[in-house]
Amino acid sequence: MTGAGPSGAKPEDRLPRAERMVAFTDAAVAIALTLLVLPLVELVPEAVHANEPASSVVTHNLVAIGSFLLSFVVIARFWTVHHRLFGFSVRLTPGLVRLNLLWVLTIAVLPFPTEMISSFESDHFAPPFYLSVLLVCSATLSAMTIVMQRTAARDGDEDGVPESFVVGSLASTSTMVAALVVVLIFPDLGAWAFLVLIADPVFEPVIRRLRGDRKKPRGVSG
Amino acid sequence: MTGAGPSGAKPEDRLPRAERMVAFTDAAVAIALTLLVLPLVELVPEAVHANEPASSVVTHNLVAIGSFLLSFVVIARFWTVHHRLFGFSVRLTPGLVRLNLLWVLTIAVLPFPTEMISSFESDHFAPPFYLSVLLVCSATLSAMTIVMQRTAARDGDEDGVPESFVVGSLASTSTMVAALVVVLIFPDLGAWAFLVLIADPVFEPVIRRLRGDRKKPRGVSG
Amino acid sequence: MTGAGPSGAKPEDRLPRAERMVAFTDAAVAIALTLLVLPLVELVPEAVHANEPASSVVTHNLVAIGSFLLSFVVIARFWTVHHRLFGFSVRLTPGLVRLNLLWVLTIAVLPFPTEMISSFESDHFAPPFYLSVLLVCSATLSAMTIVMQRTAARDGDEDGVPESFVVGSLASTSTMVAALVVVLIFPDLGAWAFLVLIADPVFEPVIRRLRGDRKKPRGVSG
Amino acid sequence: MTGAGPSGAKPEDRLPRAERMVAFTDAAVAIALTLLVLPLVELVPEAVHANEPASSVVTHNLVAIGSFLLSFVVIARFWTVHHRLFGFSVRLTPGLVRLNLLWVLTIAVLPFPTEMISSFESDHFAPPFYLSVLLVCSATLSAMTIVMQRTAARDGDEDGVPESFVVGSLASTSTMVAALVVVLIFPDLGAWAFLVLIADPVFEPVIRRLRGDRKKPRGVSG
Repeated sequence: MTGAGPSGAKPEDRLPRAERMVAFTDAAVAIALTLLVLPLVELVPEAVHANEPASSVVTHNLVAIGSFLLSFVVIARFWTVHHRLFGFSVRLTPGLVRLNLLWVLTIAVLPFPTEMISSFESDHFAPPFYLSVLLVCSATLSAMTIVMQRTAARDGDEDGVPESFVVGSLASTSTMVAALVVVLIFPDLGAWAFLVLIADPVFEPVIRRLRGDRKKPRGVSG
Repeated sequence: MTGAGPSGAKPEDRLPRAERMVAFTDAAVAIALTLLVLPLVELVPEAVHANEPASSVVTHNLVAIGSFLLSFVVIARFWTVHHRLFGFSVRLTPGLVRLNLLWVLTIAVLPFPTEMISSFESDHFAPPFYLSVLLVCSATLSAMTIVMQRTAARDGDEDGVPESFVVGSLASTSTMVAALVVVLIFPDLGAWAFLVLIADPVFEPVIRRLRGDRKKPRGVSG
Repeated sequence: MTGAGPSGAKPEDRLPRAERMVAFTDAAVAIALTLLVLPLVELVPEAVHANEPASSVVTHNLVAIGSFLLSFVVIARFWTVHHRLFGFSVRLTPGLVRLNLLWVLTIAVLPFPTEMISSFESDHFAPPFYLSVLLVCSATLSAMTIVMQRTAARDGDEDGVPESFVVGSLASTSTMVAALVVVLIFPDLGAWAFLVLIADPVFEPVIRRLRGDRKKPRGVSG
Repeated sequence: MTGAGPSGAKPEDRLPRAERMVAFTDAAVAIALTLLVLPLVELVPEAVHANEPASSVVTHNLVAIGSFLLSFVVIARFWTVHHRLFGFSVRLTPGLVRLNLLWVLTIAVLPFPTEMISSFESDHFAPPFYLSVLLVCSATLSAMTIVMQRTAARDGDEDGVPESFVVGSLASTSTMVAALVVVLIFPDLGAWAFLVLIADPVFEPVIRRLRGDRKKPRGVSG
C-alpha cells in the first residue's frame, strides 16, 4: 500500500500514499472557495435594515463582489496548478507534507485579506497584505514543485515534474514579487497593482535562462 | 496514472484523471448545499431577542425556509445531472476544467441570490437575479456536456456522452431562458415565475429536432 | 466503469457507481457536523461584551453545549449506519439517489432545530420539531435500506443488505415515532422525551415478528 | 469488498473498508481547519465601523491571529499523525469507528476554545480548557493507535502499527498532561504554558521503558 523510500527508511518514517493528502487538500480548498460567499450573504440583511431595494445589494457592493470573484479565480487558478502538479508522479516526504500544509494555510487564510480589500477602499495596507498572502502561496507551490522534481530524479522516476512546469511555477512566483514591489512603491495604485499579475509570460524566458543548465533530459540520474 | 491525449500532447500539457476534479467539485457543491442552512440558524437568536415563541421562527419565516428548500433542491438536482454526466467517459481538457470551475462558481455563489429572494419579498430584482445565476449554471453544464461529447467523438470513445443527454441538458437551459424572459416581462410574478421551470419537457422535442442531424449512432448501441 | 442495469437500460438512464454519491454524502455530513460548532463560537464575543469571565461561556451555556453534543452524536450515529449500509452491495437507482439526497437534506437542516432546542428552553415547539427532523432522517434511511435490499434481491446479488439490518433500521425509526408521540402527549417533558430513544432494543423483536415471513434466506431469487 | 473478521463475524456485524471513514474524517478536519478563519474575517467590519485603518485589523488583533495560527498548526499536526497512522494496515472495528468519531468531535469543537483563548486575555479558564480539548484529542488518537496495533496483532497482520509509533503517540499525550498540570498549578502563565508542548521528546524514552516488554518483533522487520 505504501512504498517505503528507496533508502531503506524505518517503518515509522514511511508515509502513506499521496491520494489521501491530495483529497484532504482539495476539501480544504473547496471549503475556502465556498466560504468566500458568506460576506456577500451578510450584505443582504444589511440592505434590508437600511430599507434599500434588492438591486442595491449588488450596485452598492461592487467592490465586495469584485473581491469575491477575484479570490474565487485566484483559488481556482492555484487549485488548477496544484491539480496538474499532483498529476505527475508523487512520493510523499515529510518536507512535502509540511509544504503542502503551509500551502493549505495560505489558501484557508485568503478569505481574511479578501474581506480587507473588499471593506477598505483606497487603503495602503490591504492590497500589499493580500498580495503577500498570494506570494507565500505561490512560493510554497514552487517549493513543492522543486521538491517533487528532485524526489522523482532521486528515485529515478521518469514521470516526475518536468522542467517546463518548474519554470512556469517560478515565473508565477516572480510575477507576484513584481506586483508586490509595484504596490509598495506606488501604494495609491491599490488593487490596480494586481494587473501586474497579467505580466506572467514576461518572466518565463528569464527563469528558463536562469535555470538553463537544468534543461537537460530530466529525471535521468539527478 | 494519467493518459496523455491521443494527439501526442507535450508532457506539461497533459492533465490528470477526472476523478480528482470530480471529488473537488463534489466537496464544493456539498459545502454550498450545507451552508444554505446558516441563514436559517441565524433566525433563531433574532426570535429569542424579540421574545417570540420557537414556533414563530418557522411560521414567520416561511419564505426563508422555502428559499432554503428551493436552493437545496436546485443544487441537488444540478449535482445529480453532473453526477450522471461524469459517469460517462471523461478526458479532461483545459477547457473542460475551466468550464467546470465556472460551474462550481455558479453553485458556490447561489447562497447569495438565495438570501436575496428570501429577504426581499415582492421585489423586481431578486427573482431575475436568482434565475440568471441558474441560467449560467445550466448553460455551463450544457457546454460541458457538448465538450465531453466532442472530445469522446474525437478520441473514438464509444462510451461518450449520448445525444439524448445533450438534448436533455439543452432543454433544461432553454427552460431557464424561458423562465427568465417571463419574469422580465411580468416582474410582478416574482418567484412564481420559477414555476415555468416545470415546463422542461416542452423543450426536449424542439431541441431534438434542431439537433436532428446529429442523432446518428455514437454510443447509442452501448 | 458503470454497470448497466440487468434489464437492458437505455444508456442515458444508467447511473454511475455509488462511490461518488457516497463521497458527496460524506462531505455534506462532515460539514453539517462541523458547522454545529459555529453557534458555540459566537457565544464567546457575547460573553466578552457582557464583561463575563471565560468560564461563564461554558457554565451559562450548558444547554447550548448539550445541544451541540446531542446533534453531533445524532449525526455521527446516523453516519455510522449509512456507512455500514453502503458497505453492502449497492447498485444506484434513480429512486435511491433521490432518497439519499432527501437524507442529506435532513442532516444538512439539523443545525436549524439544534439551534432551536439550544435557544428556547421549556418551549413546546422545539423538541417535537427536532424529533420530526430525526424521524424523517431515520425513515429515509429505512427506505434506502429496503430499496437496496430489493434491488440486490432482483439482481440476484448475494451480498445485499441482510434482513437483520433492515429490522434494526425499522426499529430505530419506530423508536423515533414513539419519542415523538411521547413529546406530543407530554409537551412539558421537553428534551427529556429524547430519553425514549434509549428504548430502541424494545422494538427489534416486534419488527422482526412483523416481517417474519421474510426471514427466509435473503437475496435468493427475490 | 469488505473483509469479514477472521473470527467468523455475522454479516451484519462486518464493517466496510477504512477508506470511507478516513475520507469522512478528512472532510471534517479540513472544514474545522478552514472555519478557523471566520472569526478573523469578522474582525474586518468591526474595524470599518470603528473607522480604523486596515492595518489595525492586524496590529490590534495579534492574539486572535496567533490563536488562529496555533489552532491551524495543532489541527494540521494532528491530521499528519492520523494520516500516518492510517497508512498502516487498518481493519475497522466498531470500537475503532467510535474512537475515531470521538477524535473528530475534539477536532470539530476546537474553534470554540480557540475563540476563547483569542478573546479572553489573561484569563484563568481558557488556556486549561483549550489544553483539555487537546488532551482528549491526543488521548483518543493514542487509544486508536493501540487498538489498531492489537487488531493487527490478532489478525497476524505484519503491516500493523509499529511499537515506535505507539510510543510516540503516548509521549505526545503525556506532554499534553504535563502542559495541563503546569497551567493548572501556575494559571498566570496562560497560553505560555503551551510551550511545555515542546518538551515532547522528553517523554519518549520514559514511555519506551514503561512499555519495554512489548518492544519485541511485530512489524519491525518490514
